[in-house]
Formats: sequence, structure tokens, C-alpha cells
Amino acid sequence: MAYLDHAATTPMLEEALEAYASAARSVGNPSSLHAAGRCARRLVEESRERIAAALSARPSEVVFTSGGTESDNLATKGIFWSRRAASLNRTRVIASAVEHHAVLDAVDWLNTHEGAALNLLPVDDQGRVSVADLEDLITHYQDEIAVISVQWANNEIGTIQPIRDLAHLAAEHGIPFHTDAVQAVGQIPVDFAASGAAALTVTGHKLGGPVGVGALLLGRDVACTPLLHGGGQERDVRSGTLDTAGVAAFAVAVESAVKSQQEYSARVAGLRDELVTRVRTAIPDAILNGDHADRLPGNAHFSFPGCEGDALLLLLDAQGIACSTGSACSAGVAQPSHVLIAMGADDDRARSSLRFTLGHTSTADDVDALLAALPGAVERARRATAWKTPR
Amino acid sequence: MAYLDHAATTPMLEEALEAYASAARSVGNPSSLHAAGRCARRLVEESRERIAAALSARPSEVVFTSGGTESDNLATKGIFWSRRAASLNRTRVIASAVEHHAVLDAVDWLNTHEGAALNLLPVDDQGRVSVADLEDLITHYQDEIAVISVQWANNEIGTIQPIRDLAHLAAEHGIPFHTDAVQAVGQIPVDFAASGAAALTVTGHKLGGPVGVGALLLGRDVACTPLLHGGGQERDVRSGTLDTAGVAAFAVAVESAVKSQQEYSARVAGLRDELVTRVRTAIPDAILNGDHADRLPGNAHFSFPGCEGDALLLLLDAQGIACSTGSACSAGVAQPSHVLIAMGADDDRARSSLRFTLGHTSTADDVDALLAALPGAVERARRATAWKTPR
Repeated sequence: MAYLDHAATTPMLEEALEAYASAARSVGNPSSLHAAGRCARRLVEESRERIAAALSARPSEVVFTSGGTESDNLATKGIFWSRRAASLNRTRVIASAVEHHAVLDAVDWLNTHEGAALNLLPVDDQGRVSVADLEDLITHYQDEIAVISVQWANNEIGTIQPIRDLAHLAAEHGIPFHTDAVQAVGQIPVDFAASGAAALTVTGHKLGGPVGVGALLLGRDVACTPLLHGGGQERDVRSGTLDTAGVAAFAVAVESAVKSQQEYSARVAGLRDELVTRVRTAIPDAILNGDHADRLPGNAHFSFPGCEGDALLLLLDAQGIACSTGSACSAGVAQPSHVLIAMGADDDRARSSLRFTLGHTSTADDVDALLAALPGAVERARRATAWKTPR
Repeated sequence: MAYLDHAATTPMLEEALEAYASAARSVGNPSSLHAAGRCARRLVEESRERIAAALSARPSEVVFTSGGTESDNLATKGIFWSRRAASLNRTRVIASAVEHHAVLDAVDWLNTHEGAALNLLPVDDQGRVSVADLEDLITHYQDEIAVISVQWANNEIGTIQPIRDLAHLAAEHGIPFHTDAVQAVGQIPVDFAASGAAALTVTGHKLGGPVGVGALLLGRDVACTPLLHGGGQERDVRSGTLDTAGVAAFAVAVESAVKSQQEYSARVAGLRDELVTRVRTAIPDAILNGDHADRLPGNAHFSFPGCEGDALLLLLDAQGIACSTGSACSAGVAQPSHVLIAMGADDDRARSSLRFTLGHTSTADDVDALLAALPGAVERARRATAWKTPR
């Protein structure tokens, strides 16, 4: 199999799996006071320190969660609730129009269920948010804004957002800024302290760690109402028995991904550039979506005019190529990508798109395998579309 | 080490760990459409079927979560929100006074933050809820009640609640009834369909599965607003990338725990009874808390008059005995147990209590080790208390 869907999930590193198994073989709840509990606690706190160091955060700023979706929901809803409780007219939420559904659907719920006003920041034709647009909103609504959320890099098209500028702008106005950095950590440099963000989402399974473990980096002074109440673990912001084994494996993966990021990025971007060049040669009318320069190293996202992305995906799958039409989280949903629509693509272009994402196990053979299969698949998909919708 | 804290967390079964590792070595997001994704999806759905079969639920009633705390929060908050949305005067929540903090703090938040009215069902001196008390509340408040939550068995004192009677009473009046069965599954028979409950919480790490994986069994017709919005996984009730490896390991553990429950229960209750008899012989004024007959097979919970539970715990720990003063989730909190207080215990009795919980790895040696250490530890702890508080 040529696995070109690393943005959906990437294989767990063997060393992370070993850390998991080793910790799972020692019993002990990190909240227990006895020796077994203290031993588990030590492993959790060492893991917290390693993650903090890798992402330039303080250990006390690492709040372990069950992953990206929970971190995104906790940041947007939790900060919204706390900011509104502190000042009742702070009921406005700002997010980019190209957020992952874990942010977009969370802020939609705040809008429909909790009475929040919602502004979605538009993006340009490469999927990029404008700092000036955020500045306009802040000027207009400053005292009303509870929380702002803009992803570090887009999960579909790979475009990197100007996070530092956006976050510092928000910080200057005292507004907590959250960024979903799920796709960014390990791919490009991510420095929480320097970013200016108040909160940052990271998850294990996008960088060689386990599924079901992630963190919200949360500034010490950022009030955040819990989504999960209970035993009061994790600064009372997130309750639930700490997953010692998962956290230990997550730390191994984060540390490894950050340590190897520069070398990884050069290697994978090289493969990706070759993939892009060869796809454009083989299918001259293929359109590369997203920012051509400022994009994630592993991401190549195309529209293939006249094809249905889903059909193309299945034709490639039949030849052992694993890729995606967009976010795995929306797979099977018969709607064109909200990301492409926000970029101004029409329905046809949005529906004809396919995402290839490379990762730590990718090789030149994967690119060769894709290029061996793609031209024939595109041709077949075009014939199928033409037959279905005669023009 | 004599590990007598299985209610806090119990060792992961080797076969569950193997299922985890095997699944973690195959890449694939269960929401992806390609072969790798479908393969992961198959494993998730087979796991769902195994869990459903073990607990007498339908596969579609199994909603995977990150564990007990999330399931409890989702059930109480989610059903509250949905019921209130359907009828605005349904703003009352009923829970027992001896719930785990994951329920108690969740309904407290509904009370303080969401304007819910809250009734806590009292318990008798053995920690048991009365069906008549629930009936009174239902008669009085019927149309106002959004959700009822009563645990299947108590995590501190082991008392088993009359869940079938309570749940059927609620069902007769059309009120959704949730039960936290985290401590019950694998220990005593748990049959979701026969119970009459609308929702049931179960988690992996209390029964030989991984930490960070659990489920909410949720009746098909029970509306439940999500806590975590996003990709729409899990019936749109719970979003987040499905943890294929964790779910597979959880299924192995649930199946094994339920299959061996009868034999396990007989063996462990035998050990526990011996422990209780020998503790009472060695320390004649020790008080066994909780229901003497209707209790979890692995649970022995004592008050040792004149001792500080925390001091006793540390003295035993120094001799290689791991136990707990109450819930691990409240460990280190300098408050007497809300469970014992609700049972009418005074502060002294509550503070002098210690929980010993046995599990699948427990042997007669563990009981011997405890009895070798306990009398001396109690004597020392009494001397320390007498010195601190001269009477």
C-alpha cells in the first residue's frame, strides 16, 4: 500500500508504542497516594515536562485531553464561558472560515445554543486569513469578543496561517487567542511562548503518538471553564483519570517529531515537490490548491477538473493508493469542502479535489506508485463523470 | 507490593495490551474511505459488537468516549440540554448524594451555571438510595425532571444500588435514567437492556482495559446534546478520531471481564471475606462501612477509630501495601468523603477510613501481607493522632 493520508492519521512510532506498553504494564493511578500511584504520577509529570520543553511552554501550561477535538472544544467553549461570566457583554466568537469541524462546529453550537455572536474570518483564494480583517473586527467589536480561534495550518489544503501576527494582535487587545496546531506540530516550527497564543491544540496521532491523547496548552492566566467535571485532575480544567501510558507515548512522539522536524520537513517537502511536479506533468489541467509556498511540507492538494473526488479516491484505492478527498472527519459526507468553498472555489472544483499527504514513513516508492496509477484513474473518473452528466 | 487499590485502576490484561499493540501497528483512520481506513473501521465495529453483546446492548447504543468522566458528563449535561430544549420547564436534575465526582460536579455545574434545579437523593447508613425517595420526587416534580443519575455501585464503599427498580420507575414516567456502572461491570451482572436505564457509563481501566477509553451506552431514542462537536463520529453525539487500538483493547477487556464475572466474583469475594474477618479479629473496633451483603465482591471499606486515614495509608505504603482513603480522584484532597458524610458518619469516622479493593490479580498473599502490616500501622497511627489531638 502507498499510504498518502498522513494528515488523517500517521503510523505510531515503535518507540512510542514501546513507551505505551511499558507504562501499561505498571499498575497505578497517578492520583493515588501510594508508591504505585506516585510512580505513575512521576511518569506523567516527566512526560508533561518533555512536551512543554518541545513546544516552548511551561509544564503547568500542558493540560492533557483525549485529543484534538476535545482540546478545540475545551478552548473555544471553556474560554467563551469564562470570559462571558467575567463580563456579560463578551458574547462574540471569531474563528476562521476554514477551521477544522472541531472548532467550527463548536463555535456554531456556541452561536445557536449559547447565544454567542459569531464572525467567521474569510480567507483568500489560497486559504489564508488576513490580519487586517481580524484587526477590523477587533476595532469594531473589541469589548464584546470572548475568544478568537484560528488554526496554525489547514488540514485539507496545508496553508499556513500568519499565527504570530494574529495572536499578537489579539494579545495586544487582551483577547484570548486559540490556535489548533494539530497539523503543524512536527511539520513546521511551533513555539507556544513566542506565538502569542493563549491556548494551543496538539494531538498525538498526527505526529506518531497514540490516538485518544492530546493536550491543550493553556496560559496560566487564561480562565477556562471545564467541559469535563469530576476529580479535578489537570488544574481543575479537565477531569478524568490520567492516561499514564498514553501520555508517556504522546511525549515520546512529540519530542521525536519536534527534534526531527527540520530534517523531516526538508525530506518530505522534497518528496512532495516531486509529487506535485509529476502530477502536473501527467495531468496538465490539475490545479494545486492552497498556498504554493507557505504550506505544510507533506501536503499536496489538487482539483482534477471533470472528476468526482470520491470516484478518484476509490479508483486509486483499488490500486493500493490511500488518499483522501479532504478531512477524514468529513469522509463520506456528500458535501463539498467548506475550506475550498471559503477559498472561492465553485462546487465542481471543490468536488473534484483530492488530498495527498506524506509523512514519516513516506518514500519515493509511494510517489512512484501514485504516479503509476493516477493518470489512468483520472481518465476513468472523467469518463464516469461525463457519462453521468452529459453536457 | 500488595496492590489493594483495584477500584482506582486495575492492571491491563496482557491480551488487551496485545490487541492494542496489534491495532496500533496498522495505520488507518476509521473515518477514512480507503482500504486502511475500512480495515480500522471494521475493527472498531467488531469491538462495538463485542461490547454490546457483553452488556446486552445494541451495537448502535455503544458511544465510545475517553472514559468514565466523559461518559458521565456527556450523559448528565447532554441529556439535560436536550430535554430542556424540547420542553423549557424541564430544568430539574436528580442524582444520588453518593455519586462519583464526575456526576456530582457535572450536575453541580448544571445547577450553578445552567440554572438547573438539583435534588440529591439521600442514602441510608449503608449508602443505599431509597426507591420511595425517588418516587416522591417524581410525583412532586414529574414534568420538570430532565434527567436522573444514580450509580450502579459505589466506588468507595462498594454498596450496590437498586438500579433496576430506580431505572424502571424513571422509565415508567418517561424520564431518562443514567447510571454510572464503572465499578459494576465485570464485578456483578450488568444487563443494559434489562436494567431499564436510558444511559450507562462504562470505562476500560477499571476492568483490565486501557485508561482513556470508555463508552456511554445510550438508548437509540434518547436525545443527547454533544459535549464534543466536530467530525460527527459516534452518532453525532461524540466527535473525535476513533481510537481503534484503544477500542479494540477495551472490547477484549469488557468481554473477558463479563465472561469471567461469576467465577471472578466468587473467588474475589472469598478473599475479601477473609480479609474482612481477619481485619475485624486483629482490630476489633474497626467498622466495616457500606452494605454488608449487597456490595461489590472486591470491596472492603473500614473506619479505624482514632486513626487518620491518610497517615494509615502512608504507613501501609511504607510496607508495600497499596490502598486508598477513598476515591483516587479525590486523593490528596483534605476533605472527608462526601459518601461517608451522606451516610451519616461524623467527620472523625469519615477521616479514619481506608478502602481495600481486590481485583483480578489479587491473591491470598495480598491479604496476608495486609494483615501482617495493618495492626502495627493502626497502633502507630493511633499514637500519632493521640499525640496531635490530646483528649
